[in-house]
Amino acid sequence: MHPSELRARIRNGTHTTHTSGVSQDYVQANLVVLPKEYAFDFLLFTIRNPKSCPIIEVLEDGRFESNYAKESDIRTDIPLYHVYENGRLTDKKQRIDDCWKKDFVSFLIGCSFTFESQLIKGGIPLRHIEENKNVAMYKTSIPTEKAGVFEGPTVVSMRPVPDSLVQKAADITSLFPEMHGSPLHIGDPREIGIGDVTKPDFGDFVGIKEGETPMFWACGVTPQAAALQAGIPYMITHAPGHMFVTDWKNEEYLKSN
Amino acid sequence: MHPSELRARIRNGTHTTHTSGVSQDYVQANLVVLPKEYAFDFLLFTIRNPKSCPIIEVLEDGRFESNYAKESDIRTDIPLYHVYENGRLTDKKQRIDDCWKKDFVSFLIGCSFTFESQLIKGGIPLRHIEENKNVAMYKTSIPTEKAGVFEGPTVVSMRPVPDSLVQKAADITSLFPEMHGSPLHIGDPREIGIGDVTKPDFGDFVGIKEGETPMFWACGVTPQAAALQAGIPYMITHAPGHMFVTDWKNEEYLKSN
Repeated sequence: MHPSELRARIRNGTHTTHTSGVSQDYVQANLVVLPKEYAFDFLLFTIRNPKSCPIIEVLEDGRFESNYAKESDIRTDIPLYHVYENGRLTDKKQRIDDCWKKDFVSFLIGCSFTFESQLIKGGIPLRHIEENKNVAMYKTSIPTEKAGVFEGPTVVSMRPVPDSLVQKAADITSLFPEMHGSPLHIGDPREIGIGDVTKPDFGDFVGIKEGETPMFWACGVTPQAAALQAGIPYMITHAPGHMFVTDWKNEEYLKSN
Repeated sequence: MHPSELRARIRNGTHTTHTSGVSQDYVQANLVVLPKEYAFDFLLFTIRNPKSCPIIEVLEDGRFESNYAKESDIRTDIPLYHVYENGRLTDKKQRIDDCWKKDFVSFLIGCSFTFESQLIKGGIPLRHIEENKNVAMYKTSIPTEKAGVFEGPTVVSMRPVPDSLVQKAADITSLFPEMHGSPLHIGDPREIGIGDVTKPDFGDFVGIKEGETPMFWACGVTPQAAALQAGIPYMITHAPGHMFVTDWKNEEYLKSN
């Protein structure tokens, strides 16, 4: 399905579920919406932490249409939004045009869904996709670089990969620097402060079998976690797995690097 | 002279002139100081226009010391500052700690002084340095990408280079992406909207001789010009040629790319 059709279906309420595996050949993005008062600190935070917070696009106050998605509207074209007040989830909504304020700034941040489709094409099995689960995510002992009110641990996603394919998986993802790029860590979870790998902080654990190595990539939940920890008065994000799908082909993205 | 000694001499009023050719092996930077209210728009402007506005470091409100210059103070370690109110130059000062406000944010932006010392080492003659003049700068017809209140033309610096050395000069500067990088344009000035190359908008024209080609690089005056055009209430910059000198060696910078 072309992303413009998918976005139309999301907007009119026909598509209401996650976007994993949908319009697979196109770049998908995380969304963070903040009042302009916090936009400078947040933008600086993303610049200082490019592995976990790779900025694809900023829609400043007054803008709703992405340059990467023709006739899109960031307020209606994501299947599910989360609304946070003072650092607590207070609402889940299918559209946010009814609670939009004039000073809202939107940040589109690279998402590992983009490199996952390339991993699958490269013959790397991804169990969480095979089992239709959410990827396992963990808070680590790797600190982010603070900017203003935003700080906290780097969050990583973990995928178990057959030992013989670890190097290939690292190589493929290194081609996607704006989608978190090469792994932050390969192997023993304790080395990055993960005490019990079977209990992720977010998402689902899908096991690590004999002959598999856990691989860890920086995760777009990092900036969201930092914003929650800061307890800012109002923030809107996409719901996990419910992404903004652009018209930007993965292949075009690869060529642009 | 080591930059720490130079900065100490600037701070105590011993060194009061420009920094061209001083501590040549170290990275020098442009400075723009703005109230935090404008910091988001400005940071976004620099991200959207990386060739002319390559950000080296942002010192958010409350910070005066650069990570690239030990025990530095951005308010006293530049030989001359320009103060602008509502887009007009209203004061020139040797230190700005007496007019500093709590909400000021400082931006350090890459400067072509850094690649100039490498050009000279590479055997490229630079006439404005030989004649102890300021480099010639021009407003062009190349628009910047607008962000909030900041917009305007790309400003370029021009250096006449012997025809046989043009490719070498382009190659050397391409190694310095955070110092404006490869040229924006080589040859006929009219192709980028410069009507009379003998009359620069800023700096000094040093002639273009037979057998020389004018080469144009994006210039750090671009963000300053955009901020002036926006007419924001209060802004402080370095005075042209009076740069912030870091402890960061050109060689270390080159290795980090």
